[in-house]
Amino acid sequence: MADSSSLDALVEALRRLPGVGAKSASRMAFHLLQHDREGTLMLARALQQAASNVRHCERCNTFTEGQVCSVCQDARRDGTKLCVVETPADQAALERTGVFRGYYFVLMGKLSPLDGVGPNDIGLAKLFARALDGTVSEVILATNFTAEGEATAHVIGDALKQRGLSVTRLARGVPAGSELEYVDLGTIAHALVDRR
Amino acid sequence: MADSSSLDALVEALRRLPGVGAKSASRMAFHLLQHDREGTLMLARALQQAASNVRHCERCNTFTEGQVCSVCQDARRDGTKLCVVETPADQAALERTGVFRGYYFVLMGKLSPLDGVGPNDIGLAKLFARALDGTVSEVILATNFTAEGEATAHVIGDALKQRGLSVTRLARGVPAGSELEYVDLGTIAHALVDRR
Repeated sequence: MADSSSLDALVEALRRLPGVGAKSASRMAFHLLQHDREGTLMLARALQQAASNVRHCERCNTFTEGQVCSVCQDARRDGTKLCVVETPADQAALERTGVFRGYYFVLMGKLSPLDGVGPNDIGLAKLFARALDGTVSEVILATNFTAEGEATAHVIGDALKQRGLSVTRLARGVPAGSELEYVDLGTIAHALVDRR
Repeated sequence: MADSSSLDALVEALRRLPGVGAKSASRMAFHLLQHDREGTLMLARALQQAASNVRHCERCNTFTEGQVCSVCQDARRDGTKLCVVETPADQAALERTGVFRGYYFVLMGKLSPLDGVGPNDIGLAKLFARALDGTVSEVILATNFTAEGEATAHVIGDALKQRGLSVTRLARGVPAGSELEYVDLGTIAHALVDRR
């Protein structure tokens, strides 16, 4: 952009962020250096802190700074139910409903053979060890309803059923508050098949 | 997102980037910590380096690491022509054309009274000192053709004309390669008025 190798290096580094291309990275670098030097250093510190402090919960695999996250430490939860999600953001969405009071396992990814992401890359061994601790009786698969999420649920479900666990999947159907006229056909078809 | 204050701090810091909201910031933090720890530290270093190394060229005000940028150091350029742009990215776009061989002045912003950006905030005093160095005879206003860019060009143009300099503006008209049928009315009207 201008006459500075530090600036070029910053633009290159910003391009590693998901969803950030060459133009956005230049715009971000310009904004930081021209209008927010304080924010620049704050972001640098936050990145370093997070890189050195954040690790994975030994039980549920989510991000935490201790050995075990606060959800897994909560002894009042129902140890017979284990909900499998793809990311901490998905877990947060489920927690906000207030409906589920069991424990979670966070895959931190999903099976995606096209991108070279296989069972070993998303910690399925850790999940199986967690699910077969003797207390868990039902595993609720709450991976996303995308192609990869469905495939992930399928693989996990098969493996856990073979090991004698009860496996369920989040219900698929018409979203709350929606009018049938505006719901896509695939959703209506699923809602018909899964009617109760 | 999860059970970590470092992670929350990182998400907060990422939200300071332009165009990044809460969801994007979470997604970026997740990506960095889960898939690109190396990139996390690289970005942290790049931010620190840029914040400490990058300053403004004494002559043209663009980002540089020395006192004077490489363009201003280029003695083969035409010192009688000074092109005023808003950002280093605009300067780069003009340089890529290969048509202009004078010097630049980079405002690093634009007048924007609604956002509280007045003449003092975009270094107009520095521009006037540069333009009145005795060598410059023509100032080419190449601010953007937005409302703020036009206002900025107007203010600068008036001030420099009063000081006896010749002031020109980039031509407004129909973009190269376009068909009139698909060009907006304002552009066609300007092209008619400015016909040559």
